[in-house]
Amino acid sequence: MIPDLSGLFSKNALNMKRSLIRELLKLSRRPDIISFAGGMPDPQTFPVEELADISAQVLREKGATTLQYGPTEGEPALREALASWLTRERLDLRAENILVTSGSQQALDLLAQVLIDPGDPVIVELPSYIGALQAFAAHRARMIGVPQDDEGIRTDLLEKALERLSRRKRRPKFIYIVPDFQNPSGVTLTLARRQELLALASRFEVPLVEDSPYRVLRFSGEPMPAIYSLDPQRHVLALGTFSKIFCPGMRLGWLLTPEAWMERFIIAKQGMDLCSPSFTQFIAVEYMRRGLLDREVENIRALYSRKLGVMLAALEKEMPRGVTWTRPEGGLFLWVKLPRRMNATALFEKAIERKVAYVIGSAFFCNGKGHHTMRLNFSYPSEEQIVEGIRRLAQVIRENL
Amino acid sequence: MIPDLSGLFSKNALNMKRSLIRELLKLSRRPDIISFAGGMPDPQTFPVEELADISAQVLREKGATTLQYGPTEGEPALREALASWLTRERLDLRAENILVTSGSQQALDLLAQVLIDPGDPVIVELPSYIGALQAFAAHRARMIGVPQDDEGIRTDLLEKALERLSRRKRRPKFIYIVPDFQNPSGVTLTLARRQELLALASRFEVPLVEDSPYRVLRFSGEPMPAIYSLDPQRHVLALGTFSKIFCPGMRLGWLLTPEAWMERFIIAKQGMDLCSPSFTQFIAVEYMRRGLLDREVENIRALYSRKLGVMLAALEKEMPRGVTWTRPEGGLFLWVKLPRRMNATALFEKAIERKVAYVIGSAFFCNGKGHHTMRLNFSYPSEEQIVEGIRRLAQVIRENL
Repeated sequence: MIPDLSGLFSKNALNMKRSLIRELLKLSRRPDIISFAGGMPDPQTFPVEELADISAQVLREKGATTLQYGPTEGEPALREALASWLTRERLDLRAENILVTSGSQQALDLLAQVLIDPGDPVIVELPSYIGALQAFAAHRARMIGVPQDDEGIRTDLLEKALERLSRRKRRPKFIYIVPDFQNPSGVTLTLARRQELLALASRFEVPLVEDSPYRVLRFSGEPMPAIYSLDPQRHVLALGTFSKIFCPGMRLGWLLTPEAWMERFIIAKQGMDLCSPSFTQFIAVEYMRRGLLDREVENIRALYSRKLGVMLAALEKEMPRGVTWTRPEGGLFLWVKLPRRMNATALFEKAIERKVAYVIGSAFFCNGKGHHTMRLNFSYPSEEQIVEGIRRLAQVIRENL
Repeated sequence: MIPDLSGLFSKNALNMKRSLIRELLKLSRRPDIISFAGGMPDPQTFPVEELADISAQVLREKGATTLQYGPTEGEPALREALASWLTRERLDLRAENILVTSGSQQALDLLAQVLIDPGDPVIVELPSYIGALQAFAAHRARMIGVPQDDEGIRTDLLEKALERLSRRKRRPKFIYIVPDFQNPSGVTLTLARRQELLALASRFEVPLVEDSPYRVLRFSGEPMPAIYSLDPQRHVLALGTFSKIFCPGMRLGWLLTPEAWMERFIIAKQGMDLCSPSFTQFIAVEYMRRGLLDREVENIRALYSRKLGVMLAALEKEMPRGVTWTRPEGGLFLWVKLPRRMNATALFEKAIERKVAYVIGSAFFCNGKGHHTMRLNFSYPSEEQIVEGIRRLAQVIRENL
């Protein structure tokens, strides 16, 4: 008899979503299906040959150091390399501000673990990145959603939400924002909104969490300063990752935090995994030292820009009236709105029958709304798949209008 | 003005120990100090040349797959390889029972996240592995310590503790055991005790967590069955790691769990880091496929056995009367007891002056006891350093008797 462990599960565990998206993604992985559902980079952007050479070099030059336990906060060489790479955004950034994490997902888990008690309010966007919602839910945050428009989070509504909380003597633990080519919506926060956001963070003394995995993958439009670069008061904790600009298989990300706050995050990370792999950290250092990061970012940008163009043209050509979509200036995703009476979850099964997949938009809404929306990824499928997939998707939508 | 984040810290964060051991380890890293404080493998056991070759091969053969996101539960090839490697211990083990983790520290964090609500009782040994105590403290477990003797955890006292809890209608979330060459004590749990432990787990319906990072590093004595191999009822969750038998810089470990319990751990891991690095997982697979794991384990065993011999001989020769120590049959650590009136924490500073370091024993006691004990590591220092370091340590002890 196998004992029933379920009676022993923690409240945190019971609050974790049995990820619907995980189930849907499983379906969408069938090889006959054209999937716009994932969030994966195009594998042709991975520098396979260079990495074979770099791995061997790193092992031969640094030897056993690359295979030993490393410091919890990250290899000094990687923190230095990142600090120097990021000074293009903020000049006074130092290695001491950088905590190397096992992907930016770990940074989200760290934020939740260090800041959230069950029931604590946290502000997120409507819609918001699902991995963040999961990490915050696993620590039982009370998520308060603030709607987006095509300039990003509605700062007027954010102000109202903060005032409402403040009247009840509550202060959110943080405001979580993906400002650049947001996952899932593709929307970029305008400069004016960035400044309003900082003013609100300062006025209500709430830290901002700026999660920007695609920041350097801009295809068009004006470059926008990182929020943390506009922040003399240091209200911003910023998250970054190599996953979309180098490769996800290294699982390397980072958390930028004022030095005074660093120690607590280090202690929390120590309890989580002691340290991130030294080996992959040294590989990333050498990859940057050779100038490959910036060179490859150029290639990725060109490739994804072309794919986005193909997807936008296909949507234009195929989609029936009443269906709208965002036109992101970068990143990996765009956002489709069906007519309000339609339901993207109900449609999903029919799309799978037609061998095309997407992520249902409601998965990104902490309030369960967004039933008529869907997220489409354009980085992973080939241009041919994009054309054919959008044709299939439009057909499914037309049939169910 | 930098805003004060400390008012925003979670109760979990405030409960994390500002790790004393972390501070002491910093001291002990000074190059002029002979350190018995760490828990690091000897870097000469790291297969640097083979890994340069394997990394390149894996990248060329598997290509982009090694650099992409992988499944949260681990690469199927690694789960298969581990299952087959572990069938020497339990025949009915399958890949589906194995969750690949970012080191076994992540498995400890997963256990805590999935099972512990604040205030929940958890049973640990006195002394117990500090990384586990940290992970459990970060989730605010109420730790109940059960003393060890030279046969391992005192099952008679464990029974009393379980009965006491049961009378108050409490059930611990799990019993955490390091049965083989324990960290920190070096003690191995006897077969009789293993069976008693299982009987207690079954009678009180409490899962056992068996954490055995050094299991295959046995130098002498009779091999002992893994507790999970004796467990027809599946009360045991087992943790393993490549850190001490391959290298820590890959950060790869695993959690064995009955299939019925797997899904919850996968969901929790997804929120923590999405997946462990595909790249290092494929490297581990190829390392095992080439038969290098078992070959290197032989070398590690021979090396550490020799080092332990040198340390035991030095202790015998140098230590004053009243000082005792364990004689482990494997692993990386032994345990020294000073006369009860002495205090290993007070002695630490003097040891650092003499340029020798250890870990104070009380760090391993959830009840703050063990002030007269210390943990010595014999895997990392060279034989010469062991001889000289024990000489210095004995001198400090003699001077402070």
